[in-house]
Amino acid sequence: MNTPAWNWRVVLVQPRNPLNIGAAARAMANFGFRELMVVNPYEPTWRETRSAVGAGDVVRSARAVPALMDAVGDANLAVGTTSGSRRHLARELVALAELPDWLQCHRPTRPASRGRTVLRAALLFGSEKTGLSNDEMSHCQVLVRIPTSPGCPSMNLGQAVAVCCYELARQGVATNRATGARIHRSHPAAQQSLEHLVDRAARVLDAAGYLKPKSRAATLLKLRQLLLKLGLTEYDARIVGGVLAQIEWKLGLLAR
Amino acid sequence: MNTPAWNWRVVLVQPRNPLNIGAAARAMANFGFRELMVVNPYEPTWRETRSAVGAGDVVRSARAVPALMDAVGDANLAVGTTSGSRRHLARELVALAELPDWLQCHRPTRPASRGRTVLRAALLFGSEKTGLSNDEMSHCQVLVRIPTSPGCPSMNLGQAVAVCCYELARQGVATNRATGARIHRSHPAAQQSLEHLVDRAARVLDAAGYLKPKSRAATLLKLRQLLLKLGLTEYDARIVGGVLAQIEWKLGLLAR
Repeated sequence: MNTPAWNWRVVLVQPRNPLNIGAAARAMANFGFRELMVVNPYEPTWRETRSAVGAGDVVRSARAVPALMDAVGDANLAVGTTSGSRRHLARELVALAELPDWLQCHRPTRPASRGRTVLRAALLFGSEKTGLSNDEMSHCQVLVRIPTSPGCPSMNLGQAVAVCCYELARQGVATNRATGARIHRSHPAAQQSLEHLVDRAARVLDAAGYLKPKSRAATLLKLRQLLLKLGLTEYDARIVGGVLAQIEWKLGLLAR
Repeated sequence: MNTPAWNWRVVLVQPRNPLNIGAAARAMANFGFRELMVVNPYEPTWRETRSAVGAGDVVRSARAVPALMDAVGDANLAVGTTSGSRRHLARELVALAELPDWLQCHRPTRPASRGRTVLRAALLFGSEKTGLSNDEMSHCQVLVRIPTSPGCPSMNLGQAVAVCCYELARQGVATNRATGARIHRSHPAAQQSLEHLVDRAARVLDAAGYLKPKSRAATLLKLRQLLLKLGLTEYDARIVGGVLAQIEWKLGLLAR
């Protein structure tokens, strides 16, 4: 059996405390993770102010990007982290230690390449105060719950990264390869391909008069979740995209 | 089978950064650990300066003590933590995830009390810069290794505490009971009972002319390790103590 390996990218969404960025980098280096992306960091001086003993490589190659899609667009899988204390959207919620089993059950069904398939997974951590928002979680195929105490569920960001990296490394899920994974048509569709589908579907639904101004945002969020759940490959996404394009074109013709 | 549960105490030895004390307390609270002791903290203002979101109880009940024995004396087991990167004394070194198995194999052979036996275990973390010294490690029955990367072995203190607490909680090793465990004669001897034996043995060896000034400290350290390895119960320790007392008395008589 061709069990895919995962190339993990740690993504910190809007961290407010630059020390936490350094702490996350250090924990990553401790457990052999290399790729760090920071979405829209609160502190503009994030690059200068963080400390990271022994994590020089991780810090130097870390990238700050303006939007979440810049950090997860090329990933085959986005995993959100949560303490599980809030009520969440209808997303699958697995305990951190069970994530490797979940990955095993949700592996690509048609691994095409010879040798070991390497896919890219993004592990998302929300900002210190609020965690991941509903909108941010809607980009995730699965949420992992760090099993904290009900009396004190919220973890420090750097410590949460450390616990997750420890668990993934312990279970041998990470490849630690520096090279990026290429998107293959039989691989799970990249997040950006799915996002293009959401955009296209939104245009179709707008043209069809299905989206109402009041509920538009909530409907699109549900649509994104539905698309993520389908487990489309890159090839599937292209076909669905073609279908939607055709409908959009036809609706446009009719509207003239 | 009467499997003993362990009441864990986290012991930070000479932490230099008060923020790390707060971070350790928060990680403990996250995973249901309550008892924190700080040995000889570097910063005298440790109580004022640390922060610990949601860990108020842990912080309020935390105690600073002057010496290691004050923190491990009443424990039936002392577990040291290490990245495993330095060459260590001849101590058993187990991977963190294997600690529960180790505990299972080293449980008291004669649990006497009815119901579930609760023993006290101390989990030791060395100071940020140097980790546990050889002398501090000589008080430990076992060392656990957090399996960090060879390229970046040294963890941030608060993150190390988080990873250890996560793993112990995940494997259900901790009892989370607030009440202390009483020393029972069939339990593994408390650290202070073993330390009394070391003191007594040192006096006997001094009186016998065995200890040389140059190697005295190293010899006593080896002696302590040997005593820890024997797995004496409290009752055993009393008997050995009596034997040593008798020898000491006799040697004293001869010396007159």
